[in-house]
Amino acid sequence: MLIVMKQNATPEQVEAVVERIRSLGLTPHAIPGAQRTAIGITGNKGGLEGSPFEGLPGVGEVLRVSQPFKLVSREVQPEDTVIDVGGVQLGGKAIVVMAGPCSVESREQLLAAAHAVKSAGARFLRGGAFKPRTSPYEFQGLGEAGLKLLAEAREQTGLKVVTEVMDPDDLSMCVEYADVLQLGARNMQNFSLLKKLGGVKKPILLKRGPSATIREWLMAAEYVLAHGNNQVALCERGIRTFETATRNTLDLNAVPVLKALTHLPVVVDPSHGIGIRAHVPAMARAGIAAGADAIIVEVHPRPEQALSDGQQSLTPTEFEELMRQVRIIAGAIGRAIG
Amino acid sequence: MLIVMKQNATPEQVEAVVERIRSLGLTPHAIPGAQRTAIGITGNKGGLEGSPFEGLPGVGEVLRVSQPFKLVSREVQPEDTVIDVGGVQLGGKAIVVMAGPCSVESREQLLAAAHAVKSAGARFLRGGAFKPRTSPYEFQGLGEAGLKLLAEAREQTGLKVVTEVMDPDDLSMCVEYADVLQLGARNMQNFSLLKKLGGVKKPILLKRGPSATIREWLMAAEYVLAHGNNQVALCERGIRTFETATRNTLDLNAVPVLKALTHLPVVVDPSHGIGIRAHVPAMARAGIAAGADAIIVEVHPRPEQALSDGQQSLTPTEFEELMRQVRIIAGAIGRAIG
Amino acid sequence: MLIVMKQNATPEQVEAVVERIRSLGLTPHAIPGAQRTAIGITGNKGGLEGSPFEGLPGVGEVLRVSQPFKLVSREVQPEDTVIDVGGVQLGGKAIVVMAGPCSVESREQLLAAAHAVKSAGARFLRGGAFKPRTSPYEFQGLGEAGLKLLAEAREQTGLKVVTEVMDPDDLSMCVEYADVLQLGARNMQNFSLLKKLGGVKKPILLKRGPSATIREWLMAAEYVLAHGNNQVALCERGIRTFETATRNTLDLNAVPVLKALTHLPVVVDPSHGIGIRAHVPAMARAGIAAGADAIIVEVHPRPEQALSDGQQSLTPTEFEELMRQVRIIAGAIGRAIG
Amino acid sequence: MLIVMKQNATPEQVEAVVERIRSLGLTPHAIPGAQRTAIGITGNKGGLEGSPFEGLPGVGEVLRVSQPFKLVSREVQPEDTVIDVGGVQLGGKAIVVMAGPCSVESREQLLAAAHAVKSAGARFLRGGAFKPRTSPYEFQGLGEAGLKLLAEAREQTGLKVVTEVMDPDDLSMCVEYADVLQLGARNMQNFSLLKKLGGVKKPILLKRGPSATIREWLMAAEYVLAHGNNQVALCERGIRTFETATRNTLDLNAVPVLKALTHLPVVVDPSHGIGIRAHVPAMARAGIAAGADAIIVEVHPRPEQALSDGQQSLTPTEFEELMRQVRIIAGAIGRAIG
Repeated sequence: MLIVMKQNATPEQVEAVVERIRSLGLTPHAIPGAQRTAIGITGNKGGLEGSPFEGLPGVGEVLRVSQPFKLVSREVQPEDTVIDVGGVQLGGKAIVVMAGPCSVESREQLLAAAHAVKSAGARFLRGGAFKPRTSPYEFQGLGEAGLKLLAEAREQTGLKVVTEVMDPDDLSMCVEYADVLQLGARNMQNFSLLKKLGGVKKPILLKRGPSATIREWLMAAEYVLAHGNNQVALCERGIRTFETATRNTLDLNAVPVLKALTHLPVVVDPSHGIGIRAHVPAMARAGIAAGADAIIVEVHPRPEQALSDGQQSLTPTEFEELMRQVRIIAGAIGRAIG
Repeated sequence: MLIVMKQNATPEQVEAVVERIRSLGLTPHAIPGAQRTAIGITGNKGGLEGSPFEGLPGVGEVLRVSQPFKLVSREVQPEDTVIDVGGVQLGGKAIVVMAGPCSVESREQLLAAAHAVKSAGARFLRGGAFKPRTSPYEFQGLGEAGLKLLAEAREQTGLKVVTEVMDPDDLSMCVEYADVLQLGARNMQNFSLLKKLGGVKKPILLKRGPSATIREWLMAAEYVLAHGNNQVALCERGIRTFETATRNTLDLNAVPVLKALTHLPVVVDPSHGIGIRAHVPAMARAGIAAGADAIIVEVHPRPEQALSDGQQSLTPTEFEELMRQVRIIAGAIGRAIG
Repeated sequence: MLIVMKQNATPEQVEAVVERIRSLGLTPHAIPGAQRTAIGITGNKGGLEGSPFEGLPGVGEVLRVSQPFKLVSREVQPEDTVIDVGGVQLGGKAIVVMAGPCSVESREQLLAAAHAVKSAGARFLRGGAFKPRTSPYEFQGLGEAGLKLLAEAREQTGLKVVTEVMDPDDLSMCVEYADVLQLGARNMQNFSLLKKLGGVKKPILLKRGPSATIREWLMAAEYVLAHGNNQVALCERGIRTFETATRNTLDLNAVPVLKALTHLPVVVDPSHGIGIRAHVPAMARAGIAAGADAIIVEVHPRPEQALSDGQQSLTPTEFEELMRQVRIIAGAIGRAIG
Repeated sequence: MLIVMKQNATPEQVEAVVERIRSLGLTPHAIPGAQRTAIGITGNKGGLEGSPFEGLPGVGEVLRVSQPFKLVSREVQPEDTVIDVGGVQLGGKAIVVMAGPCSVESREQLLAAAHAVKSAGARFLRGGAFKPRTSPYEFQGLGEAGLKLLAEAREQTGLKVVTEVMDPDDLSMCVEYADVLQLGARNMQNFSLLKKLGGVKKPILLKRGPSATIREWLMAAEYVLAHGNNQVALCERGIRTFETATRNTLDLNAVPVLKALTHLPVVVDPSHGIGIRAHVPAMARAGIAAGADAIIVEVHPRPEQALSDGQQSLTPTEFEELMRQVRIIAGAIGRAIG
């Protein structure tokens, strides 16, 4: 159960509700939001007949939520969340394309990629300045220098910047440079970082953990919303299965399942999902046909020289062709590439 | 390595090549085909410099095959296999829709389903007369009575019939009634049945095992081809993963991977793949956008009364809407629903 | 619910109970057994208050079974099933060791293996005459010649013979030569073969499918019992996971789970389970410590020359050392190697 | 390749080697250690004939390392790492038992658990003060108050304390109170935290991620060693598979595989691994039989009232019985419970 307080509810009113919940032997979870406070209730087994909360001062709505996730649930918010990123709508009718290299490697590389994806129709530039690498001996990213290059590319192209944050120590720096903060797959259940992202005034792109169920993923998003940031998009990037012919198993089943369960925008990453350059366009088309609100695609000016993920990065020419294809699919389902 | 004999090669010529292979310390695998014999060679580690086979009488082509699967490989046959089922092309430019109930339950049920899917544009009627059920206490199918009903439905509608064979004892009966024989997911590595299907003059729809890698699946198809039947289509129907929000994880990544590795037609089963009625259309659209040659969809006149798989079966009305959607997607990628 | 008829119940009494079940809108499943008939009931949603069956003529017991599996369940039979194989007890206090080569390759190889494992303390000789191979080009087994060699080895050593049956056409031949029939992992849900094994008068070693849940596995065993053969042992041989450092993931968790759910003996196959020779003894020890009633181990006189599974087969010397270790572990848990 | 500098090598000598590596077109990775610096080399494809490093001043050893992990590898250090925790040896001949509640809940609960496990023979007290919970609405741990209770329990019992660190902000606090820091499964690839743990002067218990391969897990340990802390123990706690009868699938195969690949101590957590109280002892026995150096077991004075993991926690009485069993198994393999 979730009690949503009125916008003008006073702290005393919130406290009174919290006390009332406790007095019933239940556990209150006050969730302060940007505009209003919600109070989750757990511990009620049998249901609360004739809600004892509806008359209380300051109470706006009392919602019965059958899922363990509450704020991210369509039960709580039936209409889609549309995230406005400096004028680009994520989760609206138009489908958004994010593209760029896996890692920011150099000024020349990043700007070449940025101009190429911009001219092909992307709205977001992706690129990692902090790289989660399986081995400590692999390239770990350029750090702040990389963030500065992303900002320069944004200035030159007007693209919005999405980049990954790995370390809470870098969080304020990433907030300064990026338009959207990505939380990587391996950190999906890094709960301390999730809580900190709840306190940030930037949208979050929350990648699915390689072995996370859809419900665990939604619970991770719930952490961010419960800590105050409701600008979260969910990015399917492939799960870990027994199959070795592909890097991961892009789970497009998650797209319609998520669209039914949550109001948050859904993004598909075909590059990490299948991990094979030649097959990225097929999975991008399929992701859009399945109902994704955005795709995020790795593009590198010279994939064969990439410091990471070269085998799954498209050349600018291949990306142009992919854009042509996804425009047609978007049109076929009554949407457009925005 | 694969040696393809000429069509008019004599048995003596085949035997001479086999002997030559043995004399080199290698293992020959004679694979008699409808029109010509192929001889697979295994055991060559280092490569055979200056092929010792090319001059031999009766030898057509000598193919170096890097994959463990040979006859199903695009290396061996670059052009697509198109299976002609009484005038309906499977694997050609047009995309084919197969639809019908999970199980044949009654004359009234099957004929209602058949007429409904026919009028919506399906070309194949699916329906199980022999049902592989997890529990021995569940409905096991109508057996031959079910096959007769399928034949009656074919007569009334002109739909081709695809149905599962489980037991070699029923094989000749299934051949008599069906146009395409399905080998179910749980029997994908039932090698004795695969060999017997190699001797049959009907096309085979080979479902992927729930934990089969793409390579194991292709090797299963190789069994059928190696035993004489090259009319095989591969059906992705979902793999088993840790995810519990869906019945299986429909692995659409397999579609482009297969189209690159093999010349055989690829079919997608969104019904078993995701297992949730409301989400079947999204996965059907995605499957076609990914490049499938056909889809197979469960449709039941009254899903809520189905003896099996009711939760994933579409009503005739829902199926009509699905057909409308997949027609648009097919058009968007330059194909049509055939 | 399960109704167990008295041993002397007449066919008319069985039929009367069946009719009574139908008259209540439920579905009866008559399960003829060696000594008495059981009748499973499905379709009862709410429970049957004041059982309408207990007074009926011929009715022995009426059992409420909460699991979908019934005859294999400990609810139905609390005491362990002990399978007597010509004087060797499988499922009793003593732990039994089965050993031998993956495939029967030659008289010399098999007899060498048989004498070696016999002298080290094994009671069963394993060896495949019919081999399920991923590729049609791999060694498929010696067939009946292999069965004859197994019989010869039995005569020489007194070992009991366990061998795999793949094809129903070979079933009567396998029954003739073998003491225990193995159903392989890939055929675990080959329901038509399971039903036929229900009609056989030999014990069955039912291997777990590589992606079968424990419940599906028990349901597969239920098929055999429901069709008349209650001499079934369950063999854990590794499941398919994402891990690639081992051939399979031997799931020893299944051992205590099975011992709680079912009365059937539990066998562990460390050879297929981990697939690495050096680590087979550790997993054999662990399997016994976890509570297995038997282990089945691959032993080959010259593993490096084996036609199959050489990398996981022990030499006779390694097997002797393994026997030494498992004897100690068996003793530590109050059992012995029988 | 790995170059291990002599203990008295000067910074100039290290730098000279680094330069030499670069001059050959390779990439050096200086890894400063407590006593000596190692320099990993990546980028060498073909092998370096007649090593150009062996003569250089300050160079101790030049090791060819075939694995991507180096410092954790048995190739680099053949002898076992033994971690001394205030006199208790982890990784030595004796097997160590760690036990305690999932979460520190109250002074009364923790002290009861601590005294119980101490008197039964445990050497370490486990207990979480910071809890990674799937839901933001679940109990998140007592924080520093919990750490203080752990320290108090240590004082009373002499048990060493192992507790999880989740947030880098809490790291110095955890270092202050704990004897061993646990990095939880969900944070196994939290690379920024791994690097920080490399700078800590306390041993690390590194839990396996639920979908981490053994190689990825070793690479995560490599991060800690490469950043200066070579006191790392690896804890198998179950992987995520398709099986739902158990909470996770405790992968005991990892034990012998790890013991062969790495010199680090291996710990087994049967409580999280199988997740069912009744079956924890069987998996504890099996873990020790497989070769684990330690086990970590959840014990709660009143499991039915636990705020987390009650279903898998043993009562003190059950834990005593488990200790009795594992002592026997340890003895059977020539070890003892230390």
